[in-house]
Amino acid sequence: MFMHNKRLQYTVRVGETNPALASLLLEQFGGADGELAAAMRYFTQGLAEDDPGRKDMLLDIATEELSHLEIVGSIVAMLNKGIKAQLSEAAMAEADLYRSLNAGGDSHTQSLLYAGGPALTNSSGVPWTAAYVDSRGEPTCDLRSNIAAESRAKVIYERLINITDDPGIKEALGFLMTREIAHQKSFEKALYSITDNFPSGKLPGIAPFADMYVNTSQGEGDASGPWNTGEQWERIDDLEEVMPLDDGDGTATVKLSRTEAATAKKVAERLQSDPAGNPTTGADLGAGPGAGKTTGEDMGSAQDIAAAGKAKVE
Amino acid sequence: MFMHNKRLQYTVRVGETNPALASLLLEQFGGADGELAAAMRYFTQGLAEDDPGRKDMLLDIATEELSHLEIVGSIVAMLNKGIKAQLSEAAMAEADLYRSLNAGGDSHTQSLLYAGGPALTNSSGVPWTAAYVDSRGEPTCDLRSNIAAESRAKVIYERLINITDDPGIKEALGFLMTREIAHQKSFEKALYSITDNFPSGKLPGIAPFADMYVNTSQGEGDASGPWNTGEQWERIDDLEEVMPLDDGDGTATVKLSRTEAATAKKVAERLQSDPAGNPTTGADLGAGPGAGKTTGEDMGSAQDIAAAGKAKVE
Amino acid sequence: MFMHNKRLQYTVRVGETNPALASLLLEQFGGADGELAAAMRYFTQGLAEDDPGRKDMLLDIATEELSHLEIVGSIVAMLNKGIKAQLSEAAMAEADLYRSLNAGGDSHTQSLLYAGGPALTNSSGVPWTAAYVDSRGEPTCDLRSNIAAESRAKVIYERLINITDDPGIKEALGFLMTREIAHQKSFEKALYSITDNFPSGKLPGIAPFADMYVNTSQGEGDASGPWNTGEQWERIDDLEEVMPLDDGDGTATVKLSRTEAATAKKVAERLQSDPAGNPTTGADLGAGPGAGKTTGEDMGSAQDIAAAGKAKVE
Amino acid sequence: MFMHNKRLQYTVRVGETNPALASLLLEQFGGADGELAAAMRYFTQGLAEDDPGRKDMLLDIATEELSHLEIVGSIVAMLNKGIKAQLSEAAMAEADLYRSLNAGGDSHTQSLLYAGGPALTNSSGVPWTAAYVDSRGEPTCDLRSNIAAESRAKVIYERLINITDDPGIKEALGFLMTREIAHQKSFEKALYSITDNFPSGKLPGIAPFADMYVNTSQGEGDASGPWNTGEQWERIDDLEEVMPLDDGDGTATVKLSRTEAATAKKVAERLQSDPAGNPTTGADLGAGPGAGKTTGEDMGSAQDIAAAGKAKVE
Amino acid sequence: MFMHNKRLQYTVRVGETNPALASLLLEQFGGADGELAAAMRYFTQGLAEDDPGRKDMLLDIATEELSHLEIVGSIVAMLNKGIKAQLSEAAMAEADLYRSLNAGGDSHTQSLLYAGGPALTNSSGVPWTAAYVDSRGEPTCDLRSNIAAESRAKVIYERLINITDDPGIKEALGFLMTREIAHQKSFEKALYSITDNFPSGKLPGIAPFADMYVNTSQGEGDASGPWNTGEQWERIDDLEEVMPLDDGDGTATVKLSRTEAATAKKVAERLQSDPAGNPTTGADLGAGPGAGKTTGEDMGSAQDIAAAGKAKVE
Amino acid sequence: MFMHNKRLQYTVRVGETNPALASLLLEQFGGADGELAAAMRYFTQGLAEDDPGRKDMLLDIATEELSHLEIVGSIVAMLNKGIKAQLSEAAMAEADLYRSLNAGGDSHTQSLLYAGGPALTNSSGVPWTAAYVDSRGEPTCDLRSNIAAESRAKVIYERLINITDDPGIKEALGFLMTREIAHQKSFEKALYSITDNFPSGKLPGIAPFADMYVNTSQGEGDASGPWNTGEQWERIDDLEEVMPLDDGDGTATVKLSRTEAATAKKVAERLQSDPAGNPTTGADLGAGPGAGKTTGEDMGSAQDIAAAGKAKVE
Repeated sequence: MFMHNKRLQYTVRVGETNPALASLLLEQFGGADGELAAAMRYFTQGLAEDDPGRKDMLLDIATEELSHLEIVGSIVAMLNKGIKAQLSEAAMAEADLYRSLNAGGDSHTQSLLYAGGPALTNSSGVPWTAAYVDSRGEPTCDLRSNIAAESRAKVIYERLINITDDPGIKEALGFLMTREIAHQKSFEKALYSITDNFPSGKLPGIAPFADMYVNTSQGEGDASGPWNTGEQWERIDDLEEVMPLDDGDGTATVKLSRTEAATAKKVAERLQSDPAGNPTTGADLGAGPGAGKTTGEDMGSAQDIAAAGKAKVE
Repeated sequence: MFMHNKRLQYTVRVGETNPALASLLLEQFGGADGELAAAMRYFTQGLAEDDPGRKDMLLDIATEELSHLEIVGSIVAMLNKGIKAQLSEAAMAEADLYRSLNAGGDSHTQSLLYAGGPALTNSSGVPWTAAYVDSRGEPTCDLRSNIAAESRAKVIYERLINITDDPGIKEALGFLMTREIAHQKSFEKALYSITDNFPSGKLPGIAPFADMYVNTSQGEGDASGPWNTGEQWERIDDLEEVMPLDDGDGTATVKLSRTEAATAKKVAERLQSDPAGNPTTGADLGAGPGAGKTTGEDMGSAQDIAAAGKAKVE
Repeated sequence: MFMHNKRLQYTVRVGETNPALASLLLEQFGGADGELAAAMRYFTQGLAEDDPGRKDMLLDIATEELSHLEIVGSIVAMLNKGIKAQLSEAAMAEADLYRSLNAGGDSHTQSLLYAGGPALTNSSGVPWTAAYVDSRGEPTCDLRSNIAAESRAKVIYERLINITDDPGIKEALGFLMTREIAHQKSFEKALYSITDNFPSGKLPGIAPFADMYVNTSQGEGDASGPWNTGEQWERIDDLEEVMPLDDGDGTATVKLSRTEAATAKKVAERLQSDPAGNPTTGADLGAGPGAGKTTGEDMGSAQDIAAAGKAKVE
Repeated sequence: MFMHNKRLQYTVRVGETNPALASLLLEQFGGADGELAAAMRYFTQGLAEDDPGRKDMLLDIATEELSHLEIVGSIVAMLNKGIKAQLSEAAMAEADLYRSLNAGGDSHTQSLLYAGGPALTNSSGVPWTAAYVDSRGEPTCDLRSNIAAESRAKVIYERLINITDDPGIKEALGFLMTREIAHQKSFEKALYSITDNFPSGKLPGIAPFADMYVNTSQGEGDASGPWNTGEQWERIDDLEEVMPLDDGDGTATVKLSRTEAATAKKVAERLQSDPAGNPTTGADLGAGPGAGKTTGEDMGSAQDIAAAGKAKVE
Repeated sequence: MFMHNKRLQYTVRVGETNPALASLLLEQFGGADGELAAAMRYFTQGLAEDDPGRKDMLLDIATEELSHLEIVGSIVAMLNKGIKAQLSEAAMAEADLYRSLNAGGDSHTQSLLYAGGPALTNSSGVPWTAAYVDSRGEPTCDLRSNIAAESRAKVIYERLINITDDPGIKEALGFLMTREIAHQKSFEKALYSITDNFPSGKLPGIAPFADMYVNTSQGEGDASGPWNTGEQWERIDDLEEVMPLDDGDGTATVKLSRTEAATAKKVAERLQSDPAGNPTTGADLGAGPGAGKTTGEDMGSAQDIAAAGKAKVE
Repeated sequence: MFMHNKRLQYTVRVGETNPALASLLLEQFGGADGELAAAMRYFTQGLAEDDPGRKDMLLDIATEELSHLEIVGSIVAMLNKGIKAQLSEAAMAEADLYRSLNAGGDSHTQSLLYAGGPALTNSSGVPWTAAYVDSRGEPTCDLRSNIAAESRAKVIYERLINITDDPGIKEALGFLMTREIAHQKSFEKALYSITDNFPSGKLPGIAPFADMYVNTSQGEGDASGPWNTGEQWERIDDLEEVMPLDDGDGTATVKLSRTEAATAKKVAERLQSDPAGNPTTGADLGAGPGAGKTTGEDMGSAQDIAAAGKAKVE
């Protein structure tokens, strides 16, 4: 059961209204790493968790993230207080209102559709989606996801701090950024309190494939480091030789029933292509008198493209 | 530049067609933890990465995930080979086709719309969205996100292995599952090869808040563990006393210009509510002769609800 | 600031596990009229609201909806407790697990991806989106939207009650359904506490158009009622005569600058179609020997379609 | 069956081209409260409606909304007529075209992707989604949703009128705004023509819970009004005492079969956390020499955050 | 199996950084006609294709599109190289950083959330969705879809070329644009290599309806051309006379079982509307003293709307 | 301006109710190739079109597609007429209602959320999105997109015909399928009435790249056909030799300002990875006593995976 107190967890003192900054801050309200995403991530995990310690921790942090959602939303509401009133009272000339709607970011939608209320969108106006929540019901995965999510949120707060010079906002964002650090620490402790947490799940890996590094991107820039080199790793460089990694022929097959096979044959016949012909096509019909136009002449304003006549393969 | 060889990285041998199983396997094709998500996550990071070692690793693994996308898609194509032909040739009676479309999972859409081709949806038919990709352009975040993503993918493969008894599919999924373990190890090595990787970003936290644990969920079930207890942690239990955590009053304020304040006042007056009255409402109008119906009588088939008359607060 | 107590607002007693029912109940967890939508709707309105009475009410109800989200999520977690353990421990034979995943609804994704944890999707597995939240920052709109949302949620709970025979679930859903009734009453009172609440906003309508009913759907079935007939309404039946409703010619025009007009002319010339010719097309090329096939012969299994030769217009 | 006449329902006279204004007007074309949403809302309800009067009304208004979609789309097409031609003919220098694309709003995508054609997106470029349509197949819900939707649309039109100084656009928007008022009136009449329309659906509420107000948000700012006070309401203030509202213990339980219970136990053991240890974590490894950095020193440009050393809890 | 070489398919030489241009170029990275959409469209078709020639072609072009995705992403990464470093190092004053984030397009989100890394969104920040991929598993459809997709991508590249004056970018975009032309030609050849490719699928059309043109939009502007006139076409102008096109009455009917019919009757009775009354409504309650306000007086800043008193229908 | 007549364009006679079939038919109501997508595609093109002939044709066909939307929706409403009444009246025992909700497809959501009303979702319950509409404001693209869309819709109708044995539904679907053929013909005629329609847009391609075929997918299965072989084509097989296709080095570069370069250097230093070390990682910490578990022993039910010990690379 949730309860609420109208005091914020941290006092919000905004220096002056600024709808464009408000629309940037929405990134942490209704964005991918925002506070709703955080709260819902931990809350849904907490509901399904059976370990009493982890359940308590998840509900503690979920609840705190809701309080952070409230802080970010309150900053947004303050920054938009001017535009909201002016828009609904038509208190400015149309041209001035129009200009203030187009002050930057996606503040136009923020003003027009939400009247400056904190909206559950990111800074581009994309509505929040539960696709951001990656709870999977396996604590050794979920805690890793939480660790990553906290580190992302920390960095987004840092970027917001770097673009703001309002001291009250900077201070509140600094508080929120620091709490993400603390939460990451808690999740780390919880992960490593599970004795055997790697790999996640119950099934072990299959021996030869778990320590193999496949060097699929080659050419200049090939590099080595502890992620692909050293005692642990068997590194595969000669892809064409070694693939497939099993003893098969690298094709995909399925056993079809007799009926399935017969039907498949019919489809194949109906749709077979004639590799030998050179059919006239719709593009041939449509190239018309301009058919010769791929010569590169007459490129209009794009003359620098024509210069690509330097192409090696000509 | 990408190149392709028609051999798969691992041979696919499917025992018999099964559209419903195919639709479950889409989870790892076009789902949140599927191979497209993995490939795109590492590929977009690799393009923006400047560190030569990490760039190479990200491109290596991105490319391998594309090969895994191909393996999963090939299994799906094999499992659907029967339904595809039968549907397009109308080779079965309508009722039989209808039944085989409704065999389970979301195989109906898989068959009807995609004709059994591997579709970039999850196992519920939800189209893949780039909202699954959480690259943030800061390696100490992104590597943590990658570690978490690999552990999630590992577990989904394990669950799919657990519901399949086709040995060829089990074997291919086992290969794919193991590769996720190997990838997680590489990302771990890369993360810890950055000397100072915690907290992510450049700004440190603010001292008192980084080691504070706020016990927001209380009551029976409160627990302690290394995530909230011990030398490191200052734990806050008396929320109402301590909040807000700064020296303010816990409200949100903004300085309005004189014009903004005047306009805000006008809006407030126009929209003020009368707390004293008891207005007739639309619901009052609509309750009609049934206004007395909240007595709980006549609950139709829901008589057990009425028994909730045992509610404490009556 | 939010706080949490581990006791639920209403006790949840589930009779036996049932993943398919769980996936239906998700409609009220992460669906369009579910509890997250309700909580976020009122919370975002509350943050931006200046009227003290409405702000308090919105925060009260938002907070209660979070407690309802917890109740629904807890029921889902209980219903899925069996599948979660069996899937992660591989405790059943593969074929049995496969069958229990395909028990109905979208329980397959629920199990496979979320391991039975309550997921923020609707009953079809569609992730929750903030597009469901229609707060507009104008109380006379928002309260109407809230009234409508509560009435929708009430009805979805009723439908869920009608398909469940587990008394514990029925009782909890009955509680939740009733709370939606109470919330609707509160929002109605708040709406009518604003003296002048219709039409929403500040601008009045333009006289002739506010009482006009345009009878655009005609033919058999045309009906009348208080919504289009009576003293208030001017009803327009002779559309072709009366349109446009202003004194213009019903076209759309814009004044172009000389440059714009000249450029527009060039585009028009480049892309003009020749209305007189009868060009050979791609379809003509492709119709091939089957060009005569629209005779309706050889319809295969679709012979009843051919019978549509009874079409009037032949 | 639909028919179309090329005359608009209201003449559109645009003063001059303006792509940025066009992108704002998309809010009522492909936005949440736009005309497509309105038309589809009423059309889908009309198709399923059995009451002849309501069916006729829904089809009348749905059809009129399509005509409004045409009006809004025509204004957008006119406002974009310049950019469309210039972009496709490359009639301006690149830098000038680039500037006119970035004139404000989301006009860049509007121009680049849609060439100034009216696109079914909102003013932020978010594609229209049927998630905006909240028809539920129960007239007493649906009519309330329609009433709310009309009041929202009215207000968005009012905001657009307030930011436009083109008299032709203002006039057309005024017409559209007024029609929303008329539609709201029709839906109100239709709702109250159903004798017993509250609560929606068939099941009554459960007596004690339908008149109860739960004061979940407390502290300074607690207020009272007809929505929580008066004869009708029983108000719950002492949450911790009274919860849960039934006679249970406020926990969630389920009866597991013997097999389920045994398996659940195994999972719990495998994943149990050790509450007593203090494990070394990934963050511990990563804090490196900067481990002491949470002292708040060296905050770079964020020195004002450091000043948050004033935090009460130190 | 995919392999990668770190050389690009075409060299990228960017003149100077420009985040706003980068955000426009995302249209071809993560937009509807972008390179990921192209690659996934052909790759999913290729996996399911049985015809060896088409399968090879689809995999060839899919793989090349991945190389194009890499080129576009590399241009974006170069254009953003400045903002990325400045944002993460906080190397500029806050106000300057804020300004450079708001340089145009949706560069604010691009910088804030993705730190200038190429993100899989379109130019408005909308995440890529598999809803863009329209593969249907029938080659005569899919090849037509591919032809259309290539022609769209060609045009978007042309528009981007027209707004860029950086010669290196122009050249690379010219290369990419031209490759779309080549790909369209290949798909055209493949389509017409299937002998009987129109209409798609196996079923022929029903004779009278396949050559009928229904003139549903009438009035001034009615036109004729080879698409509706000539020997092939039977054109229907007198809609009201001819409809429905079959010999029925144009209604929708279903045979209900006795139980279904009885239940349907009950619902109808419960929800029937009273067409004769004139009920008081919520809007009537809310119109309050302002009920007379639709007279058009007192329109505030919207006086030009009042002038719409010229409405014909008054 | 749109008008409506309550007669359908084609009479709908449904034999008996069937919610699962209804949910499949939604594919053509709110699915990617459904009638709303078709109507909106042509309508948005028509609004922006300046050529009078094409404008008329687009509005004609758009309007007819709305009539088809009505037909499909009417079939769905008929098929669901039983479930709607039973659900809202609770006319069956709970268990029976539950069973009929889970009859197949996504009929559960269809019933629960939409009460059997036709919903704007596809057959998996995914809400319609304007991302399906690919109008680009260039007729030579848009007509190609329309041709493709019609061929896709034709095929989906064919598949639905193949799974239905209700003659009334089969007949109506046959009508709709045939109209898609007619529409495709019209769009083909309109495309080829533009003299010079290939390539789309105004810019020609750059000579060497427009006739080049890049053989990126090699190995067994390499094939040739008119799409890559013959007089027209220059085919590139030796990718590693020839790439990049210009005279550069295949890298991506940008000229940074001095400040940008300096800041970029700082970031690089802060985040550089140490390629030589072998750091202890979180995974190392977590592998615990199970570190040896990748030996493949103890694979539980997945013993067939262990058999993959046959992997070649061991």
